[in-house]
Formats: sequence, C-alpha cells, structure tokens
Amino acid sequence: MRRFEVETKTRNCMVDITAQVAKAVSESEISEGIAIVYVPHTTAGIMINEGADPDVQRDILDKLSKLVPLSADYLHTEGNADAHIKSALVGESVAVPISSGRLSLGTWQKIFFCEFDGPRRRHFDVVCLNADRQ
Amino acid sequence: MRRFEVETKTRNCMVDITAQVAKAVSESEISEGIAIVYVPHTTAGIMINEGADPDVQRDILDKLSKLVPLSADYLHTEGNADAHIKSALVGESVAVPISSGRLSLGTWQKIFFCEFDGPRRRHFDVVCLNADRQ
Amino acid sequence: MRRFEVETKTRNCMVDITAQVAKAVSESEISEGIAIVYVPHTTAGIMINEGADPDVQRDILDKLSKLVPLSADYLHTEGNADAHIKSALVGESVAVPISSGRLSLGTWQKIFFCEFDGPRRRHFDVVCLNADRQ
Repeated sequence: MRRFEVETKTRNCMVDITAQVAKAVSESEISEGIAIVYVPHTTAGIMINEGADPDVQRDILDKLSKLVPLSADYLHTEGNADAHIKSALVGESVAVPISSGRLSLGTWQKIFFCEFDGPRRRHFDVVCLNADRQ
Repeated sequence: MRRFEVETKTRNCMVDITAQVAKAVSESEISEGIAIVYVPHTTAGIMINEGADPDVQRDILDKLSKLVPLSADYLHTEGNADAHIKSALVGESVAVPISSGRLSLGTWQKIFFCEFDGPRRRHFDVVCLNADRQ
Repeated sequence: MRRFEVETKTRNCMVDITAQVAKAVSESEISEGIAIVYVPHTTAGIMINEGADPDVQRDILDKLSKLVPLSADYLHTEGNADAHIKSALVGESVAVPISSGRLSLGTWQKIFFCEFDGPRRRHFDVVCLNADRQ
C-alpha cells in the first residue's frame, strides 16, 4: 500500500491525483492488473471523470451541492452532514486497469480526490493488484 | 469467497458489518491486499461511512428517500422501484485495503450493509485479494 | 485485460453486458477471484441491477434524468454536462466475485453498460484477479 498526502484549499473541490496514482503503479512493477485508489475519510471521495475542462468539475460539485445542500434538516450536528452524504454518493474508491505497466485510463479520464469538508490535510491510499497468471 | 448472513429489521436501514469483513480478512491470512465486499441483491447496497454518530446514517437514508421517494411515477410495478434506484446510486460493492493483515479503514469508517427493501434475510460476500509480489 | 465493444442506440440507455463479462471470466481460467469491469469513457458508467424487468432500467434512467436534467445552468458548453454528472454518480466500474470459475452474480443481477451521451460506439474492459493462495 502506498499512501499519499493531499492538501485541499476550499470546502468543496476536486484535486487531480492521477500523477500520484501513476507513480504508485510504476513503482509496483506490475504489468497487468488493477490499481485501487482508496480514501480513508468519511467526508471525501474518489472519482474518475473528465480532466480537460475544469468546468466539468465545477458542474459536478455544483450539482452535488444542489442535491445535497450544506444546510437542511439534518440530524448530525457537526455541520458536515452534507459532506457525509456526498461521500456516500460518490464512493470512497475507484479501480483502474493497469495494462503494459501503466494506468489504463480513457483519453479524457483523470482521477480526482473529492473534498466535501475542506480545507484540510488529507491522504489517500493506492494498492496495486497483479493479474498475471503464474 | 466467504458468505455472511444479515437480517434487516426495517425497510430502509444500514447494518454495520465491519466485524464480519474483518473476520474474513483475518481468516484469509493475507498481509497486504484488498477486501472486496459484495451484495448479490438488487435492492440493497454496500457503503463505507461514519460509524460513530448514528445520526449520520439517518441523514444518509433520509436524503436518499427524499431524492428517490417510495412512491412516484415508476413503471416497475412491484412497489420497490425506489429500492432498485437507491441500490444503483449506492453501489453493490466496496474495496478496502488490507495492510499488515488487517482492514485498513480510516478512523471513523465503518462498512455498512444498506437495506432499501426490508425487512429481509440477506447475505453478502467477501473476497480477499493478495497484493504481495512473489 | 480483455476489451469489448458496445454500440449504443439512444442518448440514455443501459446495455446488458453480462454475457461478455462471463466470457472474459471463463477465458481467464480463474476459479476464485474478482472480475473488474471498467469503462474508459467520462459520459458512461457501469452498473449492476435487476435484469428481469426492463422497467427497472427505465425507472433508473428516468430518475437520473430528473435529478440531473439535460439542460440546466451548466458551465460546460459541450451539451453533455448532464452525462458527465450521471457518470460521476453511477461510477466507472464494478467488481464481481468469481466463484467455481464463474461470475457469482445474484439471482436477479445483470451487469449493464450505462450510456448517457449516445448513440455512440463504446468499449469496456474486463480484468480478472485471482484470489487463490499459493
């Protein structure tokens, strides 16, 4: 398992972590397999989506905040119930194929750390699994 | 693959299954890897979120029921279209790192079986994958 | 990694790809493990849900379009911001147990390619991971 740090700057944001995941894949020396990216926090998530136009990230974050507003009739009193719910909807991990020793993302895909209760110092884990048969 | 049973008591609820998953990980004798938790039902899901304050679970279930109400203009006539849609949003599996022979969850994370069409007798599966290189 | 093609016929649709995934599992000759199904596109997703009643698929797609309408105050100007957001909510992969050499889906479960910006020629990848200990 390889752990990386990420510092988020605002309450809701998406941070491109593709380079760190690619580094973990390279260091694993696995040719064919799967990279699992995991966030050990309950008010954050991991998402794969378009990285070319930052407006796509803004649209995703904006829609999440419309579906799950900051303030509503939540029972949890720490002021971040919305962040827990967004985390539940987005999910805490992604699985990406490794092919020929590299992350096999689609042309437009990037891997994002999704912050829903920042700014904070966070981390995420990468585990690489080998699919080669012996 | 290790199969566990879970009995749900209400139509919508989240049942903490962390102990069972930890047991499967321990029995796998895997030191470094990934545990996949999978639900073979189409009106339930698996989620990781905060386990300390039960109000977080209530907020999550309440928001899901607001986004996807029990009754609406659904075509599916079995009365559980909402449960299928919630299952689609939450997802039928999670992947959790195994590190030093143990589930590597974050401080506040627990693994939940999410029931959307209970009460029922359900089950879930745990598969542990080894990340050690030979 | 095994890559499959799929041709989608409408803007929003779910295509049952269970047979292709089962074929990849069979060819992998893995007895116990996990099959990861991955979509390398940013306006599509992979979902497991009921395959018996097509109305369930229609209800899921209809609810997604109500939560994330085609037209709204999106910033992304390519006319498919809704598709990116739906992809973010549904997710780009699923993980299904392999048991006794076969996909271990629940009785009613099928694996679907979810198109949110069709019709298009698409593809998806299947990676099979071995859980047998040596």
